[in-house]
Amino acid sequence: MVNFELTREYIENLRELISSKNETAIVNLLKELHPADIAEIYEELNLDEAKFIYFLMDDDTAADVLTELEEDDRKKFLDSLPSDVIAKRFIDKMESDDAADVLGELDDQRQQEVLSHIDDVSAAGDIADLLNYDEDTAGGLMAKELIKVKEKWGVSTCLRSMRRQAEEIDEVYYVYVVDNDGILKGTLSLKRMLLSPVDVSVKDIYNSDVISVKVDVDAEDVSNIMDKYDLVALPVVDSIGRLVGRITIDDVVDIIREEAEKDYQLASGIIEDVEASDGVLQHTRARIPWLLIGLFGGILASWVASGHLDLIEQFPALAIFMALIAAMGGNVGMQSSAIVVQSLASGSVGLETNWLKLLKELGIALLNASILSILIFGYNMFFRDDIALTITVTSAMFSVVVFASLFGTFIPLLLNKFKIDPALATGPFVTTMNDIIGMFLYLTIGNLVFTMLG
Amino acid sequence: MVNFELTREYIENLRELISSKNETAIVNLLKELHPADIAEIYEELNLDEAKFIYFLMDDDTAADVLTELEEDDRKKFLDSLPSDVIAKRFIDKMESDDAADVLGELDDQRQQEVLSHIDDVSAAGDIADLLNYDEDTAGGLMAKELIKVKEKWGVSTCLRSMRRQAEEIDEVYYVYVVDNDGILKGTLSLKRMLLSPVDVSVKDIYNSDVISVKVDVDAEDVSNIMDKYDLVALPVVDSIGRLVGRITIDDVVDIIREEAEKDYQLASGIIEDVEASDGVLQHTRARIPWLLIGLFGGILASWVASGHLDLIEQFPALAIFMALIAAMGGNVGMQSSAIVVQSLASGSVGLETNWLKLLKELGIALLNASILSILIFGYNMFFRDDIALTITVTSAMFSVVVFASLFGTFIPLLLNKFKIDPALATGPFVTTMNDIIGMFLYLTIGNLVFTMLG
Repeated sequence: MVNFELTREYIENLRELISSKNETAIVNLLKELHPADIAEIYEELNLDEAKFIYFLMDDDTAADVLTELEEDDRKKFLDSLPSDVIAKRFIDKMESDDAADVLGELDDQRQQEVLSHIDDVSAAGDIADLLNYDEDTAGGLMAKELIKVKEKWGVSTCLRSMRRQAEEIDEVYYVYVVDNDGILKGTLSLKRMLLSPVDVSVKDIYNSDVISVKVDVDAEDVSNIMDKYDLVALPVVDSIGRLVGRITIDDVVDIIREEAEKDYQLASGIIEDVEASDGVLQHTRARIPWLLIGLFGGILASWVASGHLDLIEQFPALAIFMALIAAMGGNVGMQSSAIVVQSLASGSVGLETNWLKLLKELGIALLNASILSILIFGYNMFFRDDIALTITVTSAMFSVVVFASLFGTFIPLLLNKFKIDPALATGPFVTTMNDIIGMFLYLTIGNLVFTMLG
Repeated sequence: MVNFELTREYIENLRELISSKNETAIVNLLKELHPADIAEIYEELNLDEAKFIYFLMDDDTAADVLTELEEDDRKKFLDSLPSDVIAKRFIDKMESDDAADVLGELDDQRQQEVLSHIDDVSAAGDIADLLNYDEDTAGGLMAKELIKVKEKWGVSTCLRSMRRQAEEIDEVYYVYVVDNDGILKGTLSLKRMLLSPVDVSVKDIYNSDVISVKVDVDAEDVSNIMDKYDLVALPVVDSIGRLVGRITIDDVVDIIREEAEKDYQLASGIIEDVEASDGVLQHTRARIPWLLIGLFGGILASWVASGHLDLIEQFPALAIFMALIAAMGGNVGMQSSAIVVQSLASGSVGLETNWLKLLKELGIALLNASILSILIFGYNMFFRDDIALTITVTSAMFSVVVFASLFGTFIPLLLNKFKIDPALATGPFVTTMNDIIGMFLYLTIGNLVFTMLG
């Protein structure tokens, strides 16, 4: 299989084949592609074109492509199909976790309709079960399909049962060992099966050091556990330890990417999940909230400046460094918040208490503040000739950097304490607050210095 | 295995056991822990304590713990050990990719010394091979250990050979099929082996649709491919298609996390990889470069303001909105850059040309600029009574938002064209540039408006 690259020519060629209804050529084209590539192509087609090629794919491919689509494209596509087609051509061919994810995007009534058209009652039951879990928990991530064997079996009974179970599963990474009550006891690696003679019993060769999670564990914790312990699959148990499903690493990779993207977007002032390919209106909707907060903060800062208008009238030179001090507060606060947000997100908080964090931040802040104050002092001494302005800028720089650092560290810790996503603290929010505070400190100090010296 | 949680009490207890040299108790404690947990504990101990518990672990655990450590802790630890101990107790017990990663952190002479102490010449050769690849390529990520079978074999020959090969490998996910020249032909899933009778030949049951990468492919592309196609393992081939290694998903998860962290840190103005647990000096070193750029930019902006000092002297009210306009330019530019950086990083650039991107950004910018200008106009009309200031602020807001959006989109695209990490465009750099430009536009427009109306 060659790595596929989407080009304009490819799409134009495909569009022509679709409009001339050349089914054989399209089938041959699609046969060479991975479902993930077909999904990429799909996003470049209109709904009618997409539907045309959809019904030329075999059922398994069509189901795989559906799970690979962007959520809004999938929704548009499914809305245009009757429930029985969705059930039989798509849901029935998917693993239970993908099926539940796709169904979860439909409204309740549609979910029931689709489920009623699935012939295999136990599969429909599995999906209905999964729909009950919150999608941000282990239960919402897991699939029901897994291979389990009983502790008391011999390897040959095991192999027979595994052959039967394996038919329903895409890939087998682990075999889970349970007792008579279905309680998870351990794993049996395929390597171990390969290396063992057929006459030993499962209980002699399985590995009882198994890491598992309960159904209600948070998705972010699941991803941290799988990452930390380098796991490819993670079994999920109910409250009394019975094996109910398993989570595979590919689902967790998606979570890691999404979490990282979300934090990055928040830090950049973008409020909802938006892709480069989305339209102008979606982009504006994602960006305008933070800009409004910035505007509001800026207006507050303008009040602070208005309050000192007589001072500026008397000493207009003060205006020269106003933006610099405000911006510096914003930059420093953002750095401090980012460090806290990242250590909270990775779960690697270590043993440092919050007080120790603030104390260390104070050390960093004092060092940064000293360097920056000395530089701005030196600049003013060499290039400008205004002793009052020099003292004002230097002291304001020092106090703004120290204050903004502590504020930037404190806010995400506070949000986290109240179970609010600490990433909200980064981006324009802390920046704007620090802008205002910077303006306030600068003009207050300026007032003091200029009235004393000026 | 219970999920382990690191507590202060646990460390204190362990420290007491170490100082009283209670080896049996420590061995029992460690036996219950995963290497990743022991690595976490290690980071809380001093070098002597760490060395004491290291030599109480069995070799495999000790090697696993070593690979889990933070790079600087590992370096400190290895520097305190003779080369033969490193070779025999650690490197010899690791998979080749981990061994090469650890060795790659030592200087050249030390690498040679350690390699010369490894008894298994072919293992040492594998590691030496891997050391030749750039660590940011597929070759630098791959491990040499894999199970390969020949196309022409029968399933029973296969099983015998696999048993032999499997002894050296931690986990088996895929079996690779090669021809007589070692050229990669496809994969044989373990599920397929489970389901096939022993008398068929490999060539009848293997899957020839295999996705592979060449050794020189960029690590970020490797992670995008594995993510896109949901792969757990990816075979690596040389320039003529011979199978030379395989990359597993756990290494790629680390890359995804690291890339995301790096982009996030750059966006927040932190320049080198720094952890919350690092010391004050490391933090200052990571943060001060961007602050210096911010300071320099702010000084440039102060020149712009100085150049209009007579204007500010005449109309001090202009100072009131100076910081707001500068900050708005920074915020808008950051949003625009973040969208471009993220679409470039995920490789999901789609078919939009750069011109189309800029055109769309212009649409978003015009919309955002209109909303924000109308709001600031309304605010000034209601709450302030200065028609020249109102016109200045409103026009400056509009032009700054439009300009900063286009600038923020253009810069990362430009950097990417010259193969420079576009993420550099986010954070204080674009923000600072936009601060200056905001100041310039505001005062230039102010000059125009106030000399005409004032």
